[in-house]
Amino acid sequence: MIIVGELINSTRKAIALAIEQRDQGYLQDIARRQAEAGANFIYIITAHGGDEVADMIWLVDLIQEVVDIPLCIDSPNPQALEAGLSRFRQQGMINSISAEKKRWEAVLPLIIKYKPKVVALCMDNSGMPNTVEKRLAVAEKLVSGLREAGVADSDIYLDPVVKPICVNNQYGLEVLQSTEQLHLKYPDIHIIAGLSNISHGLPERKLINRVFAVVSAIKGADTYILDPLDQNMMSLLAATEALAGQDDFCMDYISGVRAGRIKA
Amino acid sequence: MIIVGELINSTRKAIALAIEQRDQGYLQDIARRQAEAGANFIYIITAHGGDEVADMIWLVDLIQEVVDIPLCIDSPNPQALEAGLSRFRQQGMINSISAEKKRWEAVLPLIIKYKPKVVALCMDNSGMPNTVEKRLAVAEKLVSGLREAGVADSDIYLDPVVKPICVNNQYGLEVLQSTEQLHLKYPDIHIIAGLSNISHGLPERKLINRVFAVVSAIKGADTYILDPLDQNMMSLLAATEALAGQDDFCMDYISGVRAGRIKA
Repeated sequence: MIIVGELINSTRKAIALAIEQRDQGYLQDIARRQAEAGANFIYIITAHGGDEVADMIWLVDLIQEVVDIPLCIDSPNPQALEAGLSRFRQQGMINSISAEKKRWEAVLPLIIKYKPKVVALCMDNSGMPNTVEKRLAVAEKLVSGLREAGVADSDIYLDPVVKPICVNNQYGLEVLQSTEQLHLKYPDIHIIAGLSNISHGLPERKLINRVFAVVSAIKGADTYILDPLDQNMMSLLAATEALAGQDDFCMDYISGVRAGRIKA
Repeated sequence: MIIVGELINSTRKAIALAIEQRDQGYLQDIARRQAEAGANFIYIITAHGGDEVADMIWLVDLIQEVVDIPLCIDSPNPQALEAGLSRFRQQGMINSISAEKKRWEAVLPLIIKYKPKVVALCMDNSGMPNTVEKRLAVAEKLVSGLREAGVADSDIYLDPVVKPICVNNQYGLEVLQSTEQLHLKYPDIHIIAGLSNISHGLPERKLINRVFAVVSAIKGADTYILDPLDQNMMSLLAATEALAGQDDFCMDYISGVRAGRIKA
């Protein structure tokens, strides 16, 4: 599994404040702890209303000083994305391109120029997808466009668009079936499980997120944007890998328990 | 989901002792607490080496004094099963019949005479099944035999036989695929997820059991023999029902959280 450590997100108040006040130590410490907890990427969102381009450059440089793992940057602003991409010291990831015309046209040139891994959101100008078929059709468009632009399948991370189950009781099954079918159709393309939308509007959201993470993995998702310091979630995902036959003789699971990283 | 509260199991020392000492209050309290926590059946195992027939009769009478839900009795000894069945005040369940010749011949007459719900273990004289196909073949034999004996599909609970994932990394996928295919083939027959075998030999077993319970439900299992006082497990299963579209607008989930039964 690929874990994108989500904590440096400027929509969280403490992070927005730390960025504003240029609190290096605080932000570097969060990055370091996520890497130690097993993150494969450090997520950076800068969209909080300041000078985003300057913030992105500052943060990307700052975080790369303290961790060896790559970054995943996220912004609605293509200039901020480009600013971040231009500072990457190794291949990182951007979140996201979509099949919405304006976004596609703004982000594709960045992908061609900087060759990052890319999250491709299954959404087009007609809005949020309402069926499994719609997601497959949008994914088809995204994948063929990215392939044409020279992006390898292994650099594509499809996001099937998760919607809250409290709104419609079919939304969970819909995204799980989409995950399963996308995985069958594109075995070398990664699939992201978007954990927080699924539980929007519900109490004890972590519980729903955990269950969704486990089931998504069984259906073919392999990439999670989450808090790697959440030991319960990380433990469940390790147990899921063991159950799904991805951990021979459960050696990783057993050594994680011995090291105190994995707990019931 | 159908929850069989597993705590009155004479292979647990405290329970064996309580049965031996005829500790009514202790055993009745455990039954009552399981029913209050949401169990649909109270499990009773008496195979601990005393006078099992007498123990079964005593326990079945004792537990029915304090709970209104039916019982599920389990014994390798057909006489003990019959003793229990003869005291049922409502339709209960027995665990189990199998396609092993001796067991089939001993238990089928009890099913015909007392008409309980029945767990059917996908095992025959050739031993534990090693493939999905073998489980489907044994299930076919069991289901056709039980149907011929007049048992309704809705009274059959197939147990696909769970083996420990630490022995072979395919054992998890094997039983999950079996569950999925049995559910597709027999939509009106229940499927039991045997939680404890999956984690045999591993540390922090509850973690593996939880993940297996969640994924089994998504694959079509609907019946669990477990500890209903384990709030974490019960909360995950409630979240799984919500995710799987079995809880309109998540009303059961939300009311469970409000009542304090469901917690992250």
